[in-house]
Amino acid sequence: MTNETHKHRSALRKQLYRTIFLSDTPAGRVFDICLLIIILASVAIVMMESVQPLQIRYSSLFNWLEWVFTILFTLEYLLRVWCTPKPKRYITSFYGIIDLLCVIPSYVEFLMGGGHFLITIRILRLMRIFRIFKLVPFLHEGRQLMLALQRSRRKIAVFFFFIMLLTVVLGSIMYVIESSHNSGFTSIPVSIYWAVVTLTTVGYGDIAPVTPIGQAFSAVIMIMGYAIIAVPTGIVTAEMTRMRRAAYDLKARECPGCHMKIDDHDALFCKYCGTHL
Amino acid sequence: MTNETHKHRSALRKQLYRTIFLSDTPAGRVFDICLLIIILASVAIVMMESVQPLQIRYSSLFNWLEWVFTILFTLEYLLRVWCTPKPKRYITSFYGIIDLLCVIPSYVEFLMGGGHFLITIRILRLMRIFRIFKLVPFLHEGRQLMLALQRSRRKIAVFFFFIMLLTVVLGSIMYVIESSHNSGFTSIPVSIYWAVVTLTTVGYGDIAPVTPIGQAFSAVIMIMGYAIIAVPTGIVTAEMTRMRRAAYDLKARECPGCHMKIDDHDALFCKYCGTHL
Amino acid sequence: MTNETHKHRSALRKQLYRTIFLSDTPAGRVFDICLLIIILASVAIVMMESVQPLQIRYSSLFNWLEWVFTILFTLEYLLRVWCTPKPKRYITSFYGIIDLLCVIPSYVEFLMGGGHFLITIRILRLMRIFRIFKLVPFLHEGRQLMLALQRSRRKIAVFFFFIMLLTVVLGSIMYVIESSHNSGFTSIPVSIYWAVVTLTTVGYGDIAPVTPIGQAFSAVIMIMGYAIIAVPTGIVTAEMTRMRRAAYDLKARECPGCHMKIDDHDALFCKYCGTHL
Amino acid sequence: MTNETHKHRSALRKQLYRTIFLSDTPAGRVFDICLLIIILASVAIVMMESVQPLQIRYSSLFNWLEWVFTILFTLEYLLRVWCTPKPKRYITSFYGIIDLLCVIPSYVEFLMGGGHFLITIRILRLMRIFRIFKLVPFLHEGRQLMLALQRSRRKIAVFFFFIMLLTVVLGSIMYVIESSHNSGFTSIPVSIYWAVVTLTTVGYGDIAPVTPIGQAFSAVIMIMGYAIIAVPTGIVTAEMTRMRRAAYDLKARECPGCHMKIDDHDALFCKYCGTHL
Repeated sequence: MTNETHKHRSALRKQLYRTIFLSDTPAGRVFDICLLIIILASVAIVMMESVQPLQIRYSSLFNWLEWVFTILFTLEYLLRVWCTPKPKRYITSFYGIIDLLCVIPSYVEFLMGGGHFLITIRILRLMRIFRIFKLVPFLHEGRQLMLALQRSRRKIAVFFFFIMLLTVVLGSIMYVIESSHNSGFTSIPVSIYWAVVTLTTVGYGDIAPVTPIGQAFSAVIMIMGYAIIAVPTGIVTAEMTRMRRAAYDLKARECPGCHMKIDDHDALFCKYCGTHL
Repeated sequence: MTNETHKHRSALRKQLYRTIFLSDTPAGRVFDICLLIIILASVAIVMMESVQPLQIRYSSLFNWLEWVFTILFTLEYLLRVWCTPKPKRYITSFYGIIDLLCVIPSYVEFLMGGGHFLITIRILRLMRIFRIFKLVPFLHEGRQLMLALQRSRRKIAVFFFFIMLLTVVLGSIMYVIESSHNSGFTSIPVSIYWAVVTLTTVGYGDIAPVTPIGQAFSAVIMIMGYAIIAVPTGIVTAEMTRMRRAAYDLKARECPGCHMKIDDHDALFCKYCGTHL
Repeated sequence: MTNETHKHRSALRKQLYRTIFLSDTPAGRVFDICLLIIILASVAIVMMESVQPLQIRYSSLFNWLEWVFTILFTLEYLLRVWCTPKPKRYITSFYGIIDLLCVIPSYVEFLMGGGHFLITIRILRLMRIFRIFKLVPFLHEGRQLMLALQRSRRKIAVFFFFIMLLTVVLGSIMYVIESSHNSGFTSIPVSIYWAVVTLTTVGYGDIAPVTPIGQAFSAVIMIMGYAIIAVPTGIVTAEMTRMRRAAYDLKARECPGCHMKIDDHDALFCKYCGTHL
Repeated sequence: MTNETHKHRSALRKQLYRTIFLSDTPAGRVFDICLLIIILASVAIVMMESVQPLQIRYSSLFNWLEWVFTILFTLEYLLRVWCTPKPKRYITSFYGIIDLLCVIPSYVEFLMGGGHFLITIRILRLMRIFRIFKLVPFLHEGRQLMLALQRSRRKIAVFFFFIMLLTVVLGSIMYVIESSHNSGFTSIPVSIYWAVVTLTTVGYGDIAPVTPIGQAFSAVIMIMGYAIIAVPTGIVTAEMTRMRRAAYDLKARECPGCHMKIDDHDALFCKYCGTHL
């Protein structure tokens, strides 16, 4: 083809790229919003499909819509591959894989039936929302939360490890106490499940102690859980308070002498060069 | 009518206004207390009406009382409209609408039957309590709480958005795991409901996993919820602590001698350089 | 009687007073410990009496022990009345009334049967433990906790008031949604009970929504409750942190010039008189 | 035997000691990892043994594996005893006892049958993990958490004592209210169990109030529990925040010029008076 058409195509490609990948143009914003709606709609369909009565009445409609969405997503995927400057990089990127996983299940189902587990993969389409929401200012807050959690991740890890051991031990003890009175404690794993349900104060009641000893023991476990619940809260809160204080102290000025940042508001002299501020 | 009577009426009107809308007069206070009692009584009646046995025995009494209250509220409403200097403004105001909504249902029911949903509207009468409680000093505390929540509202919004996505994904996964073992997980929406019930540690137990994999997975979800519960607490607490500190730092003055911050209000001399303040 | 014997009696009385009311003597400590054991034993009996099988087998024993304890407590009460310098004051005091309430039920039951509700009164004997525990150093911690709760009592009051209104409104709405589908929501009060059970994340499951709308709505309520749970925690924690900081800053020194207390560790000059420290 | 062989043996012993007890050598690390795997495997077997279907199908396999593990642990125990410089001390040490308890049950069961309770003892093998995890850096975090809990242990003790009294009283009251309406409240101990289940917001629902008064009362209890849950959280969080601040203040030095506290470690000049540090 001539250089002319080539230029033209590359121009079109650039424009498409900006529209699809970035959202700093009106077109881009419109595209994002449409995409958002389609995603939510397709997820809604996946949900409704799982409701028996709806499934029976509208199965054909659902089927039809499912294909519409699949084709739309496929086109979008191909467009993204085509217009991105580095196709390989996009395809192997996190979002690239997600985008692919959003369309494959339908084809797989079409070709070889496949069953339930494909639904979950389709739900992954929700993940795509995150890409769109990158534009939302909320993300800053989100990052802050993530940071607080990250900062205290090791503490939390230790905490979980401790909880795991605890539930295993408590569950086994309850198994020994209760198993012979045909209450729900039919095996150690089930008893551990019960211990988690109890320690986290969820308390379904599908399994509950029936023997006096069992009830007394689980009362102790509950009060323990009551105190334990304080720990992760304490960790995260302390972390957040610290971050808040840090942010609050961050009234940095610059020293006229050495141009270093001075980050405490009550300094009279630069702590690096001694210049009077 | 003569100017005389007119003056007289406007005077009466002013007085009524003070009595009904403000509570800085003994009469006003009395009025507020009466209103409070009537509201609580009428709400109590609405509740009792919903109890079958009581309803059967005292239906006529309830009916009669309901009308008494309705008429009282109607009179009050008309009085308010009449004595306020700006009737339009009152009618279109938040409380004006509430006041109207408190009387309409009875009339509607009288005219065209109408059913359950009218009860809820009547419960709205509770809202009116807020107007009365504006006089209670507690309101200051209330405002502080509101402030703390408001300050962290964006963080909380992000948090809820995250919870929503999480529950949808977790619910779908559980649906795939459990649905084929006729436990309660009959559809994705129901499974999402279950995920919320579990993550929030409410745990009704009306729906509970029965498969080992399902139980293991929900154990993980619970421990997650256990950590997640820490986040909103952390947010609000950090906010409150910050507000406390801010209030504490607000007392700070600057020393004319050394330009240091002095943060106690009863200082006569700068604690750093001894300059008389 | 002669002055001699009178002196003697008053001496005995004083000694008894010290032993029974104070615990600064070995005798006093022994007395307290015996009393503690008797109280716990009597409470244990009251509990065991309520267990059907035990009640059937040991009723006579329980009866007999109950009388032993009653007589012991009666003697103690009379002794307290006799040996205290101000009998009236003791009898009308909080603990005096408790002591009396601990013995009356048995007599009442003996005279006129009386039923269940007497048991609860007997449980009041537990209250007496507090008097004994006044000696335990833990009480300091207890006082601190109380203080933290007291300091934030108004905030908590507002919070409860808010929760009350909320549960009433939410309960009524759920009643309207669910009542017509014979789920547990049989009346507004019951629905309010359900709302409390849900908001506090207790979640018995004795009443649970069955309609899709009801489940969706209660999911929202749960997530709300999840955020609301953060508020009281935030209040108390902020208060405690503040108290901690206060205690931490309380490194008070005395100014040589004006002998005022200076409570910040980084002061170089007295803030009251300007003396160099 | 000759001094030569003796030397040789003691050398071997030293090496074994380093490998088994310490983990500062490659061999030691390998040993720890193998041990970890064996422990987890043996615990997994204990769990699976308790699952009926698996037990029926693989009982012989389980039996066989159980013996393999027992023998391995026995050998390890003997090695430890042999190679440690102070055998007595090891045997009487916490871990020494655990190690012994991990092997005994199997022998006991072999000799005299024995039943359920032996399983729990076997689960103790998990405890051994702690010894291995001493190498994990996480332990630092663990220690910090422990410290925070220890610091506030007396407050928490008071809190638990208070909760105990509260549950006893509340349970008894509910017993009086509910027992005569054949709901689950069959005895005071059971009612106390219910009170714990409710206060801790676990809420199994195996026992739930049925009378209006009972439901109203338990609604109050729940809201109370809701506030009470704030207390331990407050305690721990305040403690953690304090520790954080302490760590932050620990960096403080004093300026030779103005004797002010300087709390950042990278300061070269006093920020108050400009003196070179």
